[in-house]
Amino acid sequence: MTKFDEATQAIRVDENTYDVCLDPGYSIGGPLNGGYLMAAVLRAVVDASPHEHPVSTAVQFLRVPNPGPARVRLEQLKAGRTAAMTRATLIQDDTAYIEALVTTATLGAGGSEWAGEPLMPMPPIEDCVTLPDPKPESNMTFNAQVELRFDPPSIGWFTGEPAGRPESRAYFRMSEPQDPDPFVLALAVDALPPVVFSAGRRGWAPTVELTWHLRALPTPGWLTLIGQGRLIRDGWFDEDVEVWDSDGNLVAQSRQLARLGRG
Amino acid sequence: MTKFDEATQAIRVDENTYDVCLDPGYSIGGPLNGGYLMAAVLRAVVDASPHEHPVSTAVQFLRVPNPGPARVRLEQLKAGRTAAMTRATLIQDDTAYIEALVTTATLGAGGSEWAGEPLMPMPPIEDCVTLPDPKPESNMTFNAQVELRFDPPSIGWFTGEPAGRPESRAYFRMSEPQDPDPFVLALAVDALPPVVFSAGRRGWAPTVELTWHLRALPTPGWLTLIGQGRLIRDGWFDEDVEVWDSDGNLVAQSRQLARLGRG
Repeated sequence: MTKFDEATQAIRVDENTYDVCLDPGYSIGGPLNGGYLMAAVLRAVVDASPHEHPVSTAVQFLRVPNPGPARVRLEQLKAGRTAAMTRATLIQDDTAYIEALVTTATLGAGGSEWAGEPLMPMPPIEDCVTLPDPKPESNMTFNAQVELRFDPPSIGWFTGEPAGRPESRAYFRMSEPQDPDPFVLALAVDALPPVVFSAGRRGWAPTVELTWHLRALPTPGWLTLIGQGRLIRDGWFDEDVEVWDSDGNLVAQSRQLARLGRG
Repeated sequence: MTKFDEATQAIRVDENTYDVCLDPGYSIGGPLNGGYLMAAVLRAVVDASPHEHPVSTAVQFLRVPNPGPARVRLEQLKAGRTAAMTRATLIQDDTAYIEALVTTATLGAGGSEWAGEPLMPMPPIEDCVTLPDPKPESNMTFNAQVELRFDPPSIGWFTGEPAGRPESRAYFRMSEPQDPDPFVLALAVDALPPVVFSAGRRGWAPTVELTWHLRALPTPGWLTLIGQGRLIRDGWFDEDVEVWDSDGNLVAQSRQLARLGRG
């Protein structure tokens, strides 16, 4: 069991109740990473489902949970032959912190009938760069869990040269040896720096809603994350992330609606 | 009150319970259009919210409801100053048919800080075309409620010449004189023929999950709907629709995950 598997472990209490222990190692300056929270919730949902794969996950981030024990409560909305639907709530101190609607199904090994091209070409990984480790006092413990190799123009903001449009692109893998699976993908879709950094904005950008779809099971190796936004308006922005596996398959699609940071 | 306003009317029973009457005039060959069902659910959510605008709506389509009386049951998950979060369930015969997570907020009149371009240019409306009225026995009553003027290549499938890629594009307005509002947008994001028709597929393509974001209040006039898919695989496809208003603002973004029809 990897550290990530352990940090997202969901222990069955009864049919519709699971205990999780939220790990302080996934902090983004205090709040825990949204992808990490989704992965923990999905462990419970998948364990309780007749199907193996979370093909659709829509999450509302109501409040910011604390590291430590939490509970996932499930309500089974439909158990069909093709797909099952579950509502899941992450609870701490009798309060709902995250509300999710999840569709599980069993994906086959068949190939694509039609597939689009990546939205942006990525340079080879050896031409991509890392960001320096954050200072310990920034409480960015999340950064130690994953490896990101950025397409240089998409982190121009770091040296004061933002690209001028919302975008974020990187190769991604877990820091520990771990092949990507649907739970790693839940982490991956929310692992990039906010796309608005490239548009000249800074500060914590809280996700309000995130929906992602699992489209295929990823092959081992680096994942490619291609993120962009379409509109920054009225304090809100969208962030679309596509995840491609090392064989060039589109394996996950996500879109989140988030608030602009005040920083 | 327009026919659409009436067909989506939600009558308050108590704080968290609304009655709706599902109108047979929104049928797509039997099942009611998903956008119509979302609009009815959103009437209840918005009426009960301290905020005016449904900025994020994620819906699971569990079962196919019948025309006639139904109930919307709400659970208020959070009522914040910036945003309120609500869970809504559409119920018939004590069974949940639709489960939705909705974030409401109050959008301002400010302009965009950054905006992308439409994914595809549209020809002028006078170069776009209508599809012939469906035969009465097809039970496509939805078609009478809206006007769609299609970008010709995106309906090549109708004459046996599908474009070969998942896409669908049209100008849209209600058949009755009615300015677009957030409820009309809920209808608009699910009003196009499935994008997979352009990839050579036919038949009813049931939506499993649809999430859409309201990004700005639309100006009066025609809306432009630009739909595309990124992947058809394993019986599943995605459909992304962007809605632009007559002033060239991106007003709504949606993505649905749906099943390929057997037709």
